[in-house]
Amino acid sequence: MTRELTDAAFLADFAELSAIGATAAGGVHREAATAADGHAREWLRAWFVEHGLHPRVDAVGNMYGCVEVAAGAPYVLLGSHLDSQPTSGRFDGAYGVLAGAYAAATVAAEVADRPGAARHNVAAVNWFNEEGSRFSPSLMGSAVYVGKTTADAVLDTVGKDGVSVRDALSRIGFQGDDVAPPANSYAEIHIEQGRTLEDEGLDIGVVTSNWAAYKYVVTVHGEQSHTGATHMRYRRDALVGASQVVLAVRAVADEFGLDTVLGSVGRFTVEPNSPVVVPARVRLAADLRALDGETVEAAHLSFLNKIADITGAGEVTVEIESAALRPSTRYQDSGIALAGTVADDLGLRWRAMPTMAGHDSVNLKELVPTVMLFIPSIDGVSHNEREFSTDAQMLAGLHTLTETARRMVTGALETAHVS
Amino acid sequence: MTRELTDAAFLADFAELSAIGATAAGGVHREAATAADGHAREWLRAWFVEHGLHPRVDAVGNMYGCVEVAAGAPYVLLGSHLDSQPTSGRFDGAYGVLAGAYAAATVAAEVADRPGAARHNVAAVNWFNEEGSRFSPSLMGSAVYVGKTTADAVLDTVGKDGVSVRDALSRIGFQGDDVAPPANSYAEIHIEQGRTLEDEGLDIGVVTSNWAAYKYVVTVHGEQSHTGATHMRYRRDALVGASQVVLAVRAVADEFGLDTVLGSVGRFTVEPNSPVVVPARVRLAADLRALDGETVEAAHLSFLNKIADITGAGEVTVEIESAALRPSTRYQDSGIALAGTVADDLGLRWRAMPTMAGHDSVNLKELVPTVMLFIPSIDGVSHNEREFSTDAQMLAGLHTLTETARRMVTGALETAHVS
Repeated sequence: MTRELTDAAFLADFAELSAIGATAAGGVHREAATAADGHAREWLRAWFVEHGLHPRVDAVGNMYGCVEVAAGAPYVLLGSHLDSQPTSGRFDGAYGVLAGAYAAATVAAEVADRPGAARHNVAAVNWFNEEGSRFSPSLMGSAVYVGKTTADAVLDTVGKDGVSVRDALSRIGFQGDDVAPPANSYAEIHIEQGRTLEDEGLDIGVVTSNWAAYKYVVTVHGEQSHTGATHMRYRRDALVGASQVVLAVRAVADEFGLDTVLGSVGRFTVEPNSPVVVPARVRLAADLRALDGETVEAAHLSFLNKIADITGAGEVTVEIESAALRPSTRYQDSGIALAGTVADDLGLRWRAMPTMAGHDSVNLKELVPTVMLFIPSIDGVSHNEREFSTDAQMLAGLHTLTETARRMVTGALETAHVS
Repeated sequence: MTRELTDAAFLADFAELSAIGATAAGGVHREAATAADGHAREWLRAWFVEHGLHPRVDAVGNMYGCVEVAAGAPYVLLGSHLDSQPTSGRFDGAYGVLAGAYAAATVAAEVADRPGAARHNVAAVNWFNEEGSRFSPSLMGSAVYVGKTTADAVLDTVGKDGVSVRDALSRIGFQGDDVAPPANSYAEIHIEQGRTLEDEGLDIGVVTSNWAAYKYVVTVHGEQSHTGATHMRYRRDALVGASQVVLAVRAVADEFGLDTVLGSVGRFTVEPNSPVVVPARVRLAADLRALDGETVEAAHLSFLNKIADITGAGEVTVEIESAALRPSTRYQDSGIALAGTVADDLGLRWRAMPTMAGHDSVNLKELVPTVMLFIPSIDGVSHNEREFSTDAQMLAGLHTLTETARRMVTGALETAHVS
């Protein structure tokens, strides 16, 4: 016997889920495969069971709640991720997982009463380590699912705390051995994490493509010495060089004018990091992003020139350990059209738009037709405990995802290609 | 029965001590009250016992090796510190502790055979946490000894790993309850950590004063957001602001011309420090140093102006949590004259000079007449595994310290004042 799937139940369940790993300021701190993430996963597994979804956990901790409504057919997957950044918001990822679970349970219950209506099976999904804050890179679980990396490579990855993915997942009891359900198609709903929908008074964003991104790992090499006894002309201060790199990234972003290029350094680790020691090394993670590939390549070249200037000044050596391009690619037109029709049919105000941030759907769209939906983020605040969307915004999104899933399960995306 | 106190024994003992907490590159990693520091302390305590020095450990882990040769009299203290910076050199501090122990044992054995010769008792000393890398601030044990802070304040201090001094000392068995021996005077020998002695072909430096230093704890406040979804104009990036602070410190040092002001940021900690999160906060430790108080005050004002400009630009707020001045003060003339005479008598080339770096003797000279000696540091390299002084340089220093101690114990510094 499944439990009710009402709007009120959704909001109550979202509040319950948000309490797991909650911070005093209204956010969550639930990094991948930590104890808090484990509790959220246990909560979701119980939810799956109570609502008639059959839990599966694959080798890299991706969780599926499966319902077989079309024997032997591949699955419409609906989901997002439960892990969070440190001291982050409660909506990012978790909203999409719960909405996916509600949509899956709702559609499964409907088609169960109408033999032959379902052309595909349906499953909710919680992808492992979308955020990449504890284990780098991000989008890990979905990358294994689509074959961009291997389960072994992911399991061997060691996090910032020195623990491997294998050990971290084992400790929380989520390194599974279930076979992942094969996909027919995928839909994900997420907060926008920007201000476009709010500024334009819209309910829904239908994502057309992802921004291109260069992600860098950079090490600045200097030489350790005494801050109190080493004259300035003898110094090779890695922190001075790394500070120049941070400002170079900012300068690249500024060169391209308003809202064109994003540039940031998020992780920045100083060695040996003692008050009276001139730093020997700084390791940092930088990114440069733009809507189109041409612009991001121009930003990349500008960054390389600036790095060469910093090394050329002679105090430090800046080593680019890796520079990985995530290209801008489109979501399938069939999915964009479907989601737009659904929003129209529901009387919602929507627009097509790119996603600036990465999402698991960026991986999934390489494998199967994929629909990506946004709801508004108040003030565009994200990766911050003040992240917020209203109940009405969440429910409008839930209804859009559910109706989209309903049509996908009954065959609306039959232009599907397979990998 | 005490063991031999020859030059060869000193060098062999220094090699043994250097093996404790040794790094592959020839340095040591022996931060205060870590297991490695504990092993070095056990080694020193055994050395004290084998050589007739009676071990005492006070409440904040200062270790003394005492010999009573003048019943009831205060002590000539001879020492330095065994703790090191992370991945640092094997000479900094440890050389001075071992030289102090040799000098104390040598002089004690001599005067024991000549009743009435000693006007003071003698003790070797290993001060707790000179470096300040694990527990801030530096010069902790000697600060308690001279009454600049309290044992309770030090014991309650929590280190960068979340462990208190009390717990850390207890774990290694060095939170003692012995009474510290009262001081008549103090002598310390240390590597120069600069290039002056080497450049001028000298054997010994006799320290006349310490450089003035401003030490700052600064927090840069921004706002956490998503590196991939937040347009640049909405960002308040604490790492960009903190990078500007690092370059401001460098600019202040450069303003004053060659070898006049030192400026550095050594500790720099980013929160939340995730690759895809715009940093919310950076906490950093900065210092500005100059020989004289007037110059360091001018540098301080220049720094404050630059900080105000960074906050004034509007993206971040720079908060100076603390700004502590260590003034430049002189070592007592009587001690400078004594050490110079000893060096002349030994036929060594020496000069008077200030110390740029802080030392425990900077604290002790506020309490009792204090002699501070330097030996050359090859290339001036310090707080680095490549730190090096030759055997001949170490032995010339040992002989100078021993002869200075011999004269101090027999009454050469009778201009002594007490606190």
